[in-house]
Amino acid sequence: MSTSINPPRGMRDFLPADKRRRERVLAVIRETFRAHGFDEIETPVMEESDRLHSGLGGDNEKMSFGVLKRRISREELEAAAAADDAAALSDLGLRFDLTVPLARFYATHRGSLPTVFRSIQVAPVWRGERPQKGRYRQFVQCDIDVLGEPGELAEIELLTAGSATLQALGLGACTIRINDRRLLGALLAGCGFADDEQAAALISIDKLDKIGAEGVVDELHERDADAAARLGEVLAGWEPRIAAGIAPTREGILDALPPALREAPGVDDAATALDRISTAVAASGGVPIVFDPTLVRGMGYYTGTIFEVAHPESGSSVGGGGRYDGMIGRFLGQDVPACGFSLGFERIIDLAVLDDDASVAREVALLVDRRLPAADAVAVKRAVLASGDAARVRVERKPKNVRALITQLEQQGFTHVAHLRDEHVADPASLRFEAIGEEADA
Amino acid sequence: MSTSINPPRGMRDFLPADKRRRERVLAVIRETFRAHGFDEIETPVMEESDRLHSGLGGDNEKMSFGVLKRRISREELEAAAAADDAAALSDLGLRFDLTVPLARFYATHRGSLPTVFRSIQVAPVWRGERPQKGRYRQFVQCDIDVLGEPGELAEIELLTAGSATLQALGLGACTIRINDRRLLGALLAGCGFADDEQAAALISIDKLDKIGAEGVVDELHERDADAAARLGEVLAGWEPRIAAGIAPTREGILDALPPALREAPGVDDAATALDRISTAVAASGGVPIVFDPTLVRGMGYYTGTIFEVAHPESGSSVGGGGRYDGMIGRFLGQDVPACGFSLGFERIIDLAVLDDDASVAREVALLVDRRLPAADAVAVKRAVLASGDAARVRVERKPKNVRALITQLEQQGFTHVAHLRDEHVADPASLRFEAIGEEADA
Repeated sequence: MSTSINPPRGMRDFLPADKRRRERVLAVIRETFRAHGFDEIETPVMEESDRLHSGLGGDNEKMSFGVLKRRISREELEAAAAADDAAALSDLGLRFDLTVPLARFYATHRGSLPTVFRSIQVAPVWRGERPQKGRYRQFVQCDIDVLGEPGELAEIELLTAGSATLQALGLGACTIRINDRRLLGALLAGCGFADDEQAAALISIDKLDKIGAEGVVDELHERDADAAARLGEVLAGWEPRIAAGIAPTREGILDALPPALREAPGVDDAATALDRISTAVAASGGVPIVFDPTLVRGMGYYTGTIFEVAHPESGSSVGGGGRYDGMIGRFLGQDVPACGFSLGFERIIDLAVLDDDASVAREVALLVDRRLPAADAVAVKRAVLASGDAARVRVERKPKNVRALITQLEQQGFTHVAHLRDEHVADPASLRFEAIGEEADA
Repeated sequence: MSTSINPPRGMRDFLPADKRRRERVLAVIRETFRAHGFDEIETPVMEESDRLHSGLGGDNEKMSFGVLKRRISREELEAAAAADDAAALSDLGLRFDLTVPLARFYATHRGSLPTVFRSIQVAPVWRGERPQKGRYRQFVQCDIDVLGEPGELAEIELLTAGSATLQALGLGACTIRINDRRLLGALLAGCGFADDEQAAALISIDKLDKIGAEGVVDELHERDADAAARLGEVLAGWEPRIAAGIAPTREGILDALPPALREAPGVDDAATALDRISTAVAASGGVPIVFDPTLVRGMGYYTGTIFEVAHPESGSSVGGGGRYDGMIGRFLGQDVPACGFSLGFERIIDLAVLDDDASVAREVALLVDRRLPAADAVAVKRAVLASGDAARVRVERKPKNVRALITQLEQQGFTHVAHLRDEHVADPASLRFEAIGEEADA
C-alpha cells in the first residue's frame, strides 16, 4: 500500500475540471436526445453471465469482466480447476455494451413500455482490452434506440437526433457514411461467395482502410480465389468514387454498384430506402450523408441500414449504428424490429466545443483571514448565495501566497474573489467582488 | 434464456419516469453541493482488492463483489482450490463505498489538488447484501468530503451544504443529531471499560434503538459486568432527555453528561466544538441540530465529530458522516485531516419534493397519419423544436385507439398533442397544439 498508487490498469480518475467538462457534454447529449422524443432508462451494471455470453456481443464478449460468485465452496473451486473453467465461478458479469442490457430490459418490461419505445442510455461499460492510447477498460457509451418500429422512421429519427446532438456540441463538420447490409449481401453473393463464407468476407472488408483491396483479396484467397478476385476488382474500382463522395440517392447508389448487381433481389429496395432516409435527414437539417458501399460495421447482428459518423479531426469514427431486427427476439422469443445509434463519447469529449461556462453568474472565493471564526465565514457564504450575487461560493483561508491561490482558483473556474474582513460579517452586502485578473491586492 | 427475465438479484432497472426523477434529484444535489464550493470528481467503479480489503470498510468489506482476473490458469485454479481461497482469483473488486476510493484518489493526485480539497462524489456502489425491502445490491451514494482542513470549518461547511441540499429537496423538516467520538471514549473510560473493550461497547451502543439500555448491558455483561452496569445506568438516564431533545450548546452538552465526566480530559473541548459547529450551522439557516450522546455511527474510522440526519417520514437515517482524521494516512503514509457527509440518496428519492417539471415548455407528441411519409413527420418535428414552440417533440403514428395513446403520453410527461396532417408539412407554424386533457378528438 505504498509506492505508486493508481487507479486500476486501463481505468481513469477524473479531476474536477475534466469531470465538469464530461458532465456538461453528457447534459447536452441527454437534453438533445430527450428533446427529440427519446426517454432515458437505466439498467444495473451487471447482467447474468449466460445473457452476456449468448453470442450477441461478438468479440466484446471475450473482453467481459466476470464477477465472482458471492460464496464459493472448496468443491466448486475444485470442479472449476478440474474443468480448467474459471468462468464457472462467475454468475454475473459487467456489461460490455448497452445493447445486450437493452434487449434484456425490453424483454423484462415490455408490458410497461410504449409500442414504439425510444430509449436513451448514457452509462459506463467495461472491456478487458489491452490498455492503449484512446482505449480504456471503463468508458461511457451514449446510445439511442428505437424498438418496435419496422419502417424508416426509426433510422430518420435516430440520424436526425444524432445530427442535432453533434451540432449542439459544435461538431456539425461531421459526415455520416451510410450503407445497407442487404447491399453487402447481394455484393458477396454476386461475387460468388457461398453463404457460409460471407461472414468472413465481411470481416475482411471491414478492414479495408487498413489492408486495402489487395489485402482483402489475400485474406479471402484461400476460401474462394475467384470470388475474392472479383470482390477485389469491385473494391478497387470503388476507391476513387468513395474518396470523391457518393451521393446517397437511389440513382447515385445504383450507379455506384456493378451493373449486374443493380437487378439483384432487394437491391433497388435498399437503395430506395437509403435515398428516403438521407433525403429526410437532410431536410431536417442533419449533417451531410454519403453512401459508402464498403461500410460494414463490426457486429454480426446488423440486418439492414448501417451508418457511421466521421469527423475531420478524429482518426476513428465518432458514432455509428444500424438496424438489428433479429436481436431482441433472442431474449423475448418474439421478433421486434430495432435500430440504434451510439455516440462515441470518449472520442467527442475532446472535440466538443461548449459555450463558455455560461451559468454566467459569478463564482466567488471568499478569502478569509485566519483569525476570523469559521462560523462567520460560512454565514457570509450563505448570505452571498442567498442574495443571488454568486452561483457558487467557496471559503478559502488566506495563505501567505495569495497570488498562487488565486491562480489555482482561476483554474478551478472561479471568476471573482472577495477579501472577507470582520466588518463584512454584520453586512455581507458590503463585500466587494473583484474579477480575477483585475483584483487589487488586499 | 426463456422463462422469467429479470435484472440480477437485488438490482433494479429504472423505467423512464423513475430514471427522470432520479436524475432531477441528483441534479439538485450536485448543483447545491457545487454552489457551496465543492468540486465533483469520479473514480473507476473498481479498485484493487488489497485496497478494498485494507480494514477501512468495516463490515462492508465482506459484502464486496470481487472481479475475476482476466486470465486464470489451471494452476491458479488448483492453488485456489487447495487453499480454499476464491479471493485469490480476484485482483479487483467493485467499490462498496465512496470513501475508500476517495482516499486512494487523494493519494494518487494530491499534487494536483488544492491544499484544502472539497470533493463531491455522486456514484453507484455495490454490496452483496441479502436483498430485502429498501436494501439493494447496487445503489447511489452522494458524498461530500473536506480533506486537509483540521478545524471546525470542515464540519460547518459540510452541514451547511448538506442542510441547503435537504431544503432544496423539500426536506427541511430534517433534524441533525450530533455527537463526538471523544465524548463516547470518555464515557466508556469513565464507566471503567478497558481500552480494548471499547470498540465492542460502541457496537452495542450503536444498537441502542433496537435492543434498549438493558440489551446493551446484556451484551457487555461478560466483558465487564461493573462497567456494563454503569453504562446501562447512564444510557437509561439519558433516554427521556434525548427524547425531549438536548440543545447542542456547551452548557446543554455538559449538563447532559454524568458530573464525573464533565472534568474528563477533552470533554470540555469537544462540547465547545459541538457548540460552535451547531451555532454556525444554525446561523447559516441550516436544519435544526440536537445533541445525542448515544449516537455512534457504525464505521470504525471516525475520530471526532459524528452526525446523522433524521427525517420524520423515514424510519432510518437519510444522511450522516463525521471526522475521520486517520484514514487518508493509511493510503498516503502521511496523516491528512478529513471530514465527510453522505446523503442517503435511495432513501430521499421517495421523500423529495420537486417543483413541477418546470422546464415549463411544452412537450408535444405529433400524432401522424400512417400514410404520411416518415420524412415529412420528422421534418415537422425538427421545425417545431427549432421554433422554440416545444422543448420536446415525439412523433407517434396514430393508432386505432388514440385515447389510450394519449393517456400513455400524459404518463410519460407530454403536455400537448398535435394532429399532423399533410397541409402542416409545408407550414409547420400552422400546427395547433392541444393541451392533453383538453384536446378535441381529431
